[in-house]
Amino acid sequence: MYKRQFVNTHDDKEQAARLFDKYNFLALPVVDMENRLVGIITVDDAMDVLQEENTEDIHKMNAVVRSTEKPYLKVGIVETWKSRIMWLLFLMVSATFTSMILNAFEDKLSAMIILTSFIPMLTGTSGNSGGQASAVIIRSLSLKEIDFKDIFKVIWKEIRVGLLCGLTLAAVNFVKVWFVDRTLLGMSDITLKVDLVISLTLVIEIIFAKTVGCVFPILAKKMKLDPAVISSPFITTVMDALSLLIYFWLATAILHI
Amino acid sequence: MYKRQFVNTHDDKEQAARLFDKYNFLALPVVDMENRLVGIITVDDAMDVLQEENTEDIHKMNAVVRSTEKPYLKVGIVETWKSRIMWLLFLMVSATFTSMILNAFEDKLSAMIILTSFIPMLTGTSGNSGGQASAVIIRSLSLKEIDFKDIFKVIWKEIRVGLLCGLTLAAVNFVKVWFVDRTLLGMSDITLKVDLVISLTLVIEIIFAKTVGCVFPILAKKMKLDPAVISSPFITTVMDALSLLIYFWLATAILHI
Repeated sequence: MYKRQFVNTHDDKEQAARLFDKYNFLALPVVDMENRLVGIITVDDAMDVLQEENTEDIHKMNAVVRSTEKPYLKVGIVETWKSRIMWLLFLMVSATFTSMILNAFEDKLSAMIILTSFIPMLTGTSGNSGGQASAVIIRSLSLKEIDFKDIFKVIWKEIRVGLLCGLTLAAVNFVKVWFVDRTLLGMSDITLKVDLVISLTLVIEIIFAKTVGCVFPILAKKMKLDPAVISSPFITTVMDALSLLIYFWLATAILHI
Repeated sequence: MYKRQFVNTHDDKEQAARLFDKYNFLALPVVDMENRLVGIITVDDAMDVLQEENTEDIHKMNAVVRSTEKPYLKVGIVETWKSRIMWLLFLMVSATFTSMILNAFEDKLSAMIILTSFIPMLTGTSGNSGGQASAVIIRSLSLKEIDFKDIFKVIWKEIRVGLLCGLTLAAVNFVKVWFVDRTLLGMSDITLKVDLVISLTLVIEIIFAKTVGCVFPILAKKMKLDPAVISSPFITTVMDALSLLIYFWLATAILHI
């Protein structure tokens, strides 16, 4: 591979900094479009850029739009509000889909209200599972460990990891719901079939969550978007809706409600 | 402040690397416990350490326990499963609290099933709000921008940001629920009082979420735990339960169910 020994004034500062990280340079010349020397950048500049980019990624991955490099305590209340409100609004309005799904299945929920008790656990688990996959993939994309060409390898890996995680959680959940929730906590409406619906939902939703969690950031990067934006909060919102659909489909099929 | 011009063989590698970041050293001598020179570390080592620590933080913040520095595609299925399953299990079992709360309010939910439709939106929004605060605070702790002594300044700031975010989201939600969910999507069970309960829940839960999101990582650091572990997935699980309690308290008080 071609090892660049200079950077251009038009290069992205993150890419320039990654050259230092990769080849252990101490300094690099900076040239203009006619390849005339206009200055140098040194390794300490590169280190600052990488730290700043990492901060930005961590903020983006948690739905915060960083508009300043000022330290936390120096940023005003309104500025902090601005950095957080847009994503909160977008994700809140996107949750309309979950309201629609729950409203559509209102009759079934009324007929078997015990199903409601496991909704936050099911949406929470799928969000966590998808968030794990997206975080690992976003970081790997950022470190150039993977690329668009690896998409099928990544999907195949995440499906198998999802199946393993799903089966483990489903097994623990099946026993826990029966002996803790039903026997110990007295949720007497729980039947074996209800327990089965919850546990099967876990297996299927986790496989979906792992797949969605790895595919979305890779596609975002392919479309020249920042993959860090397609992270945990976004995946969680998508998976909330998908998990509810899986849950109600299984409930309809197995419980005949 | 005392500017150290050497590192000790017993120093933490991250702390040593942060010296390079802070003072722009190119190399530092390494001494043993008797201050005898045993070697040097250079800026490119420090850069690798910082990148590795950032990767570890991003993984931890998304409930992934990184046990290897191997790139994503080189890590086996079972090893990947191991890095993800413990947190998923812990968070799933912790969600038992949400099941207990929903089960306790079963009668009220049966009486007013429309309340169910907004549960994922409410828990999602509180999780996102808390996750934003914890991510920003964890990063600021890691960059030494804030410390335990700032805890009250941080809480006071997050309460005000939470109030601003809560009021904005509640206002948008109030109008959206009335005109989109009720009128456009035909959820005819929605009354003005139901809309009020949902919107008020948003204001209160977001203030709580911002407070929990900033306090937990600071306390974790004070107790010598890694703050990155007390992040989004953990905060989300705590906020799921807290949001449901706020929701049902308000529903009981305002709707007299």
